[in-house]
Amino acid sequence: MSRRITDLFHISYPIVQAGMVWCSGWRLAAAVSNAGGLGIIGAGSMYPEVLWDHIRKAKLATDKPFAVNVPLLYADTERVMHILKEEEVKIVFTSAGNPSLWTGFMKDSGMVVVHVVANTKFARKAEECGADAVVAEGFEAGGHNGREETTTLCLVPMVADAVKIPVIAAGGIASGRAMMAAMALGADAVQIGSAFAVAEESSAHPAFKNRIISAAEGDTKLRMQKLVPVRLLKNSFEEMVAQAEAEGADAAKLSVLLGRARAKLGMFEGNMEDGELEIGQVSAMLNAIRPAAVILEDIWQGFLQAQQRIGGFHY
Amino acid sequence: MSRRITDLFHISYPIVQAGMVWCSGWRLAAAVSNAGGLGIIGAGSMYPEVLWDHIRKAKLATDKPFAVNVPLLYADTERVMHILKEEEVKIVFTSAGNPSLWTGFMKDSGMVVVHVVANTKFARKAEECGADAVVAEGFEAGGHNGREETTTLCLVPMVADAVKIPVIAAGGIASGRAMMAAMALGADAVQIGSAFAVAEESSAHPAFKNRIISAAEGDTKLRMQKLVPVRLLKNSFEEMVAQAEAEGADAAKLSVLLGRARAKLGMFEGNMEDGELEIGQVSAMLNAIRPAAVILEDIWQGFLQAQQRIGGFHY
Repeated sequence: MSRRITDLFHISYPIVQAGMVWCSGWRLAAAVSNAGGLGIIGAGSMYPEVLWDHIRKAKLATDKPFAVNVPLLYADTERVMHILKEEEVKIVFTSAGNPSLWTGFMKDSGMVVVHVVANTKFARKAEECGADAVVAEGFEAGGHNGREETTTLCLVPMVADAVKIPVIAAGGIASGRAMMAAMALGADAVQIGSAFAVAEESSAHPAFKNRIISAAEGDTKLRMQKLVPVRLLKNSFEEMVAQAEAEGADAAKLSVLLGRARAKLGMFEGNMEDGELEIGQVSAMLNAIRPAAVILEDIWQGFLQAQQRIGGFHY
Repeated sequence: MSRRITDLFHISYPIVQAGMVWCSGWRLAAAVSNAGGLGIIGAGSMYPEVLWDHIRKAKLATDKPFAVNVPLLYADTERVMHILKEEEVKIVFTSAGNPSLWTGFMKDSGMVVVHVVANTKFARKAEECGADAVVAEGFEAGGHNGREETTTLCLVPMVADAVKIPVIAAGGIASGRAMMAAMALGADAVQIGSAFAVAEESSAHPAFKNRIISAAEGDTKLRMQKLVPVRLLKNSFEEMVAQAEAEGADAAKLSVLLGRARAKLGMFEGNMEDGELEIGQVSAMLNAIRPAAVILEDIWQGFLQAQQRIGGFHY
């Protein structure tokens, strides 16, 4: 049971790096894959030609399996899908959209397909469409998020009961303890975003990485529920959104406030006040910028320690 | 380490029933204590004389340890504290307030004191005031809730790292899997509300219990953040609040909407549309009304199964 994800992806550890806008290019993906996890190139912040370049570079940087994450809410999805096929990408994670749209095409092209969900309805739908696994992502996760606001602790057991395919838990996991918690809930593996966003190989701006590792409890909030829910770090932009929402701003008003390219401005260009800074609640527990391999090894050792500690509970 | 709470309370299982308004009178508390957990009388919905009566009845119904939960946001706290002292209540859980107010009095009166927190700041404060343990309660919990919106998965490890006293995890826990997850995160015990709200011995109205066991994902939402954050089940009242909040209602407006005695109207008197129905996200996983002893035993067996399963993970 617990080898289902490592067997599916042909990786050493049941640890998957999350595809994150402006953080996860070929360098991070290759570093995680080389360390024995599954690295993911996040296509959400890439034009198709840029993604193509990252896939080619990842192939040169690792001979281990890696994946591409495709958020289905952007344009260019068709072009992206044909690039994935042409480059023979073996594993694709889709998110933020309907799994019925592209799962058939990807399966016909020989890809292993994983779909990210925030509720059991879409988990079942992904399974019915032929997805090989699902990511169950909770409320505490960074970036775009589910409308139900179901936390990882509540979501993972429900999804694990709802589908037969393997389940990867995401949201709030940045340590071996939390990884063990997710596995206890019924997950076959974990997906980790925030902890890898601050990896040395992450393409996030250094100012963003430093802001993440200095974040405290309560420094992220889920915002823009009337548009698309997204978890943001507090800064001038987030405060502007919070103020507008408290006054009853509608989707159109929020869309104007958001404008264009705010995530790039913050996460990639380093404008810590006006940029949109997407990160998980677990940022409050992160405090160092380290190589991805060290982060992964640290989580893995913590997982083994938690296993020993738990095995020793006798009543 | 993992025996710290069972030793502190002199109970058989590290399972504590949550003090809940309109659900947890002497019958539920005695049933949970008789089954080997820690039962709690929830004083939040009781006039002092009513609480006194419940304490006396609990003493007749069990010779095992039980506790009283006192939310510090209500009036009458001084009167309640003197009743607890006069009746020689041995364990008191305080919540929704500042631990520095009453912990000294309770410790001087020989009570074991536990304070409920939603962040590390108040966990440290409780420890400094002399509390014997803290409950770390996450965003997914029912009823009144923290402003930081930190989930149980993120909160428990932070609190466990922040204090030396034992930590009881609360929010999202209604199964042995979730209990094991909480223990993996560093908790010494769990506190369980929603699952016991639907116990046969719970004083909740049958209509409320039936509504809880039919609740689906996304059927609870955290509301009234501008007043006091509270997790509510969807109904006409919750929709009225949601609508008002979407339009920018302030604390004064929300206070008028809430009015008086809405929790009693819903949870105790069974008005499922106009009442305030406080319950946790995990209600989506509950589907039966059973005796408290059966609920506790089921969680415990699930915990032992999870322990075996986790012990079998080999990579």
